[in-house]
Amino acid sequence: MLKELELRRSCRNYDSKMPEEEKINEVINAGLHAASGMGYQYGIIVAITNKEVRDKISTLNAKIMNNEGIDPFYGAPVILLVAVKKWRNSPYDGACMIENMMIEATNQGLGSCWIHRAKEELESNEGKEILKSIKLDLDEYEGVGHVALGYSLEKGAKEKIIKDNRVFWIK
Amino acid sequence: MLKELELRRSCRNYDSKMPEEEKINEVINAGLHAASGMGYQYGIIVAITNKEVRDKISTLNAKIMNNEGIDPFYGAPVILLVAVKKWRNSPYDGACMIENMMIEATNQGLGSCWIHRAKEELESNEGKEILKSIKLDLDEYEGVGHVALGYSLEKGAKEKIIKDNRVFWIK
Repeated sequence: MLKELELRRSCRNYDSKMPEEEKINEVINAGLHAASGMGYQYGIIVAITNKEVRDKISTLNAKIMNNEGIDPFYGAPVILLVAVKKWRNSPYDGACMIENMMIEATNQGLGSCWIHRAKEELESNEGKEILKSIKLDLDEYEGVGHVALGYSLEKGAKEKIIKDNRVFWIK
Repeated sequence: MLKELELRRSCRNYDSKMPEEEKINEVINAGLHAASGMGYQYGIIVAITNKEVRDKISTLNAKIMNNEGIDPFYGAPVILLVAVKKWRNSPYDGACMIENMMIEATNQGLGSCWIHRAKEELESNEGKEILKSIKLDLDEYEGVGHVALGYSLEKGAKEKIIKDNRVFWIK
């Protein structure tokens, strides 16, 4: 098995140091290469490195989870928001993009974590206001999730225990 | 970017030759290593290599898509059905497992393709009957999708064109 699939972990403690743009672009490119229903590629990525906008998204995300005051992005300097044009396949398309980006983050030596509540963000007026600089009718898009991205401050190798009884053969 | 992310394609023409079980197991293992909401790992994989059961699933799948007589699995000898215990994250969890398996299939030199309608299969009495040999209460699970898996009969490198205007920076 590819070692990046084995080594990927959810990182919950990030350095504020901004990753090199080349690395961020590789991660984004992985997202663009994900499988999509009918090959339509309806998914988009909003790459947020602007500190002010990043903090506003964080504040809104915490509010949606009824946990104001915390940073749901664990200090990550980069937020990659994934949204997909609304159709029956949106959650699946977006999830594949996010998984690809987390795998490539591992390949780039970066930490990553799936952060939810992008759907609620894009449904809220506050979220649309924060993202208004992107010229897109966000009402046509369903938020699927975010990748928190940055250098990990987590120490040591986190164990990954695969649960039992998840495979059933019919031979 | 990892070359397997670049090289993955949807394969729509398979050799009937059964892939080595070791390769199938590597693909399954990749699915088990996918990210999952809260790390719960609620997703399961039903690995179907039995020709009779594989054909029954194919027939049912074609019926669900109102296209009886075709083989929605394009002749693939292996079907990896992904289902996830029902909760709010089921589609996302399952999609990550499927994406991981398609990436690992590429790494193993195998063709793969996401085939849908697993949800409808698991909701139908016919589907539950076909899968009854697995000792699991399928009513507790949501079908997410299948990976069709096998050696590709497609000729040449299929072009992969990434659509424009899918990335929006907020720097």
